[in-house]
Amino acid sequence: MREVFQQSLREVQDRLVEIAELVEEAIDKATDAFGTSNVALAEEVIDGADRIEELTGALDQLTIDILARQQPVASDLRLVVGALRMGASLERMADLAQHIAQLARYRYPESAIPKGLKKIFVRMGALDVEMASKTAELLRTQDPAVIDEIRDLDDDLDELHAKVFEKVLSERLAENPTGVVDATLASRYHERFGDHAVSVAKQMQFFLSGSLD
Amino acid sequence: MREVFQQSLREVQDRLVEIAELVEEAIDKATDAFGTSNVALAEEVIDGADRIEELTGALDQLTIDILARQQPVASDLRLVVGALRMGASLERMADLAQHIAQLARYRYPESAIPKGLKKIFVRMGALDVEMASKTAELLRTQDPAVIDEIRDLDDDLDELHAKVFEKVLSERLAENPTGVVDATLASRYHERFGDHAVSVAKQMQFFLSGSLD
Repeated sequence: MREVFQQSLREVQDRLVEIAELVEEAIDKATDAFGTSNVALAEEVIDGADRIEELTGALDQLTIDILARQQPVASDLRLVVGALRMGASLERMADLAQHIAQLARYRYPESAIPKGLKKIFVRMGALDVEMASKTAELLRTQDPAVIDEIRDLDDDLDELHAKVFEKVLSERLAENPTGVVDATLASRYHERFGDHAVSVAKQMQFFLSGSLD
Repeated sequence: MREVFQQSLREVQDRLVEIAELVEEAIDKATDAFGTSNVALAEEVIDGADRIEELTGALDQLTIDILARQQPVASDLRLVVGALRMGASLERMADLAQHIAQLARYRYPESAIPKGLKKIFVRMGALDVEMASKTAELLRTQDPAVIDEIRDLDDDLDELHAKVFEKVLSERLAENPTGVVDATLASRYHERFGDHAVSVAKQMQFFLSGSLD
């Protein structure tokens, strides 16, 4: 029974890593599509979101089956419940990548990035991609050092998020309300993406150390 | 054992109802604070968010204890896992009410609502309050008819969300980028609030009918 359970856990872990890698690919493409007004790439992200939703749905089912059949307790139970939550966070990250791609597609052939904000959004996108990559690494290696790396990246992201609002409100974007709306939404999507990576990191920390802080 | 489990389920249900009622109160006050620039009310919402987080944390712990001790299967298991998810949605609704209150506080003594958008935001707020109220009702009564009511309210909310963007982009808001940012964020918060109410409704539907659609 114990061996069966360990095998189930490995299966859960493998699936979480697989989903995290797809999320990384999605945010990478979405950032590129948003920065270069590449509508074909935007559509790839939008179409790919279904696949991620399928995978998280299947992971949910697997975790519920494990709860029902193997009735884990203590830290095993914590991991299975944690997997449910991590799956939900990864699914939200995929949704947010999709929202960014939708902004790019919606404005095409115009750029969704207002003048003067391109650099900031390139950096926000790069941070999100790195956070997704670190999330996959954390799930794969269970190395607690990666948790702090993810938190640090999120701090950088929050600073950029604040900077977008500063820029939007101070620069000559006034004649461009569409640009203000797009920048506001895109920045919020990037920031939330980071928050969900931190949620996954917290779940892993909870699992690895038995405490949440 | 069965009786103990039924008692645990009632406890879960009571707590979900309690949290949903606090969420309703929070979004009601946040809408009022946002509409009337009432900073004291905004602060009540912001301070109250901790209490809701505490309650959802305690609910999580209770559901995990039930999973561990009573090892439910089939529809019982589905309900307990569903409760975990519903708790997470209610917590996000409380966060969003807090975000709306924060916008009001941040702009005080100015209004966070750009001219010409006041009516729309009053209606969005009223819809959110009603959705929260219906969510509490659904959790309390388990009446499937309420699920459709929540979906209908969400459709109305989505229409208003689209209308905010129309207004923001077409009216003379150009000289007011702060207003564009605030309206964009507030509208997004209201829309997400509704989405989470629909998530709770879907979980209840899944529980009541055994199917998700």
